[in-house]
Amino acid sequence: MNDRARSLAGDRADPLRHFRGRFHRPPGLIYLDGNSLGMMPNAVLPRIEAVLRREWAEGLIRSWDDAGWWDLPLRVGAKIAPLIGAREEEVVATDSTSVNLFKLLAAALALRPGRGVILTDPGNFPTDLYIAEGLSRLIPGCELRSVPLGEIAGALDRSVAVVALGHVDYRSAEILDMAGMTRAAHAAGALALWDLSHSAGAIAVNLDAAAVDLAVGCGYKYLNGGPGAPAYLYVRRDLQAEIRSPLPGWWGHAEPFAFASSYVAAPGIARMLCGTQPILALAALDAALTLWAEVDFALLEEKRNALSELFIELVEERCPDLVLASPRDPARRGSHVSFRHPKGREMLEALRAEGVVADFRRPDLLRFGIAPLTLGYTDIFDAAERLSRALTRV
Amino acid sequence: MNDRARSLAGDRADPLRHFRGRFHRPPGLIYLDGNSLGMMPNAVLPRIEAVLRREWAEGLIRSWDDAGWWDLPLRVGAKIAPLIGAREEEVVATDSTSVNLFKLLAAALALRPGRGVILTDPGNFPTDLYIAEGLSRLIPGCELRSVPLGEIAGALDRSVAVVALGHVDYRSAEILDMAGMTRAAHAAGALALWDLSHSAGAIAVNLDAAAVDLAVGCGYKYLNGGPGAPAYLYVRRDLQAEIRSPLPGWWGHAEPFAFASSYVAAPGIARMLCGTQPILALAALDAALTLWAEVDFALLEEKRNALSELFIELVEERCPDLVLASPRDPARRGSHVSFRHPKGREMLEALRAEGVVADFRRPDLLRFGIAPLTLGYTDIFDAAERLSRALTRV
Repeated sequence: MNDRARSLAGDRADPLRHFRGRFHRPPGLIYLDGNSLGMMPNAVLPRIEAVLRREWAEGLIRSWDDAGWWDLPLRVGAKIAPLIGAREEEVVATDSTSVNLFKLLAAALALRPGRGVILTDPGNFPTDLYIAEGLSRLIPGCELRSVPLGEIAGALDRSVAVVALGHVDYRSAEILDMAGMTRAAHAAGALALWDLSHSAGAIAVNLDAAAVDLAVGCGYKYLNGGPGAPAYLYVRRDLQAEIRSPLPGWWGHAEPFAFASSYVAAPGIARMLCGTQPILALAALDAALTLWAEVDFALLEEKRNALSELFIELVEERCPDLVLASPRDPARRGSHVSFRHPKGREMLEALRAEGVVADFRRPDLLRFGIAPLTLGYTDIFDAAERLSRALTRV
Repeated sequence: MNDRARSLAGDRADPLRHFRGRFHRPPGLIYLDGNSLGMMPNAVLPRIEAVLRREWAEGLIRSWDDAGWWDLPLRVGAKIAPLIGAREEEVVATDSTSVNLFKLLAAALALRPGRGVILTDPGNFPTDLYIAEGLSRLIPGCELRSVPLGEIAGALDRSVAVVALGHVDYRSAEILDMAGMTRAAHAAGALALWDLSHSAGAIAVNLDAAAVDLAVGCGYKYLNGGPGAPAYLYVRRDLQAEIRSPLPGWWGHAEPFAFASSYVAAPGIARMLCGTQPILALAALDAALTLWAEVDFALLEEKRNALSELFIELVEERCPDLVLASPRDPARRGSHVSFRHPKGREMLEALRAEGVVADFRRPDLLRFGIAPLTLGYTDIFDAAERLSRALTRV
């Protein structure tokens, strides 16, 4: 019987429940939008106060060395690495996801001379499409080719330099076959680039096992790095000696303080850095990432699935007008659950009035983010109850 | 007579002295490196605490609207505009200076079809050269041509798409002739792009009067936005309808929340935005910029010159081994003063031990930043005294 008592029992038995206390959770609010902007970890505020008061205000320029500002993008990258199945030296935190995508797509074209096609699917995250489109207009011979997912394998010919896809569909939460598609890309001599924004920190990602070449991801969703947090990029170790950034700024220089007039790329992933790095924002992300060292990923996956299954079950019981728009198979579903409803936008507003925040995508999609570190079973139960109440009012 | 009493009198008579209390000034420290990282304005800490506690932690995703996050890059840009002689709608705060330079250089090439040359001088800020060099490798037909400043006018032929220069030389502090060089670029049918990183907030900049087309600048030097603060970019109003960003991310889309699969540039300067904007860092810069509404620029110029003249006079009196490496004419000198000394690095270290922070550039350059809002006459007097003491120890 799906009553509240069962959810309370679920919370009591939840081996990850102590993580909920590590975030600021506004009283009375059920937040199902961690897939868009993650909650604030408690560790962020004291860290930022220290950066402002001690490192900036007191240390000033001396903090570049004394407070380790210079290496911060690499240190933050190293903390992200275990969440995505990468080695510490394969990840760096910097810029926005879009800027990082531009850098890696342009670099991928240069790594595959004679090939000009960026292959993607038209359902890829819009800004990823825009960036690829922009690059194709910038570089003669570069072409953005969009084919539906099922036709990607067939479209892989010798003109394709790189296949660029999102790991989890931002609408349906469908998980793409990262290993299989990467294998297909490699078989055709192309590189594989994945956008992990909607997967990392919520579902298992193993770039190494899937032999992925390049990846980008964002810091403000499941990594809880704050609004507009720095993004990150990944370059497989054995590509690092060869790869070149199309935006070779001083921070990626082998000798940044030599102020040489010519660019020499730094060894390793640091060469993908461009201008002066945003220390305040990196420090917030760094503090937010601290708790991940304690997270058991198998338990995280298990809890995410249990919460999502419970939510689907409750919504389908109580709100028959809502149509599931996510895969029913939990193994194929990322960390949000989507439903369609013709009055989706009004429902979302009615739901907000009930103290539940979720989000809406045109024309009729309601997305409910199930961030397993910050949510409990009772939250899910109460959210479904309030959703059924909201439904009566639209 | 150049004694301390005269400097104390200078401080008492300083009409800008109250601004010094608006910054956190570490006790006992004389900070002559505001040209590298500006001091922290007191307004930053409470603002950032509010962004963390109220806007992020409590408001969460609702703050995109409720806390005005969405428009923040434009609002911060509008605050920078009066410092550089631009209209509010001509400036936006975003990304790093290097990323912004890349965007504007690539856009400039597209605005001048058939012309492929980026003209600069080899003494331009190194990271600006790297970015231009990177672009020239990325785009066939694009060429970076570096000629000494005196030869720029003669090198302006019909192949030049854009002249890209720094307003103030980062070594000598020499102010370049922005209006004259922009006029020469225009006469040859080229665009003029200026990097204001070493001038804005310290010396008078008037982009409008000089008819400048494009500009970039950084937020962490004289604008006091914090380590790695967002940079800004300027596009002259009548170029905005035509200009296209080579990095067309969702934040520059005309309808960002339509999640359309094709890119349509937003009207106005917002089209130069790329990915999700760094709210925390933008808020710090926004708070830091507040005090500029009260600054009288004529007084600022006057004080900067008076402090710089005093410093040169004192150093030349007390440290005859130091050779002035900045223009002697204050009208041609930006907001730092440079001296050469063969043991520059050791001197800088000895000076730090005396509680004075300045910076060093290879091979022998000592740079002393004279940020007029945070420094007083007595600081200058004491710094020169300590410099002469440090000199006896190297």
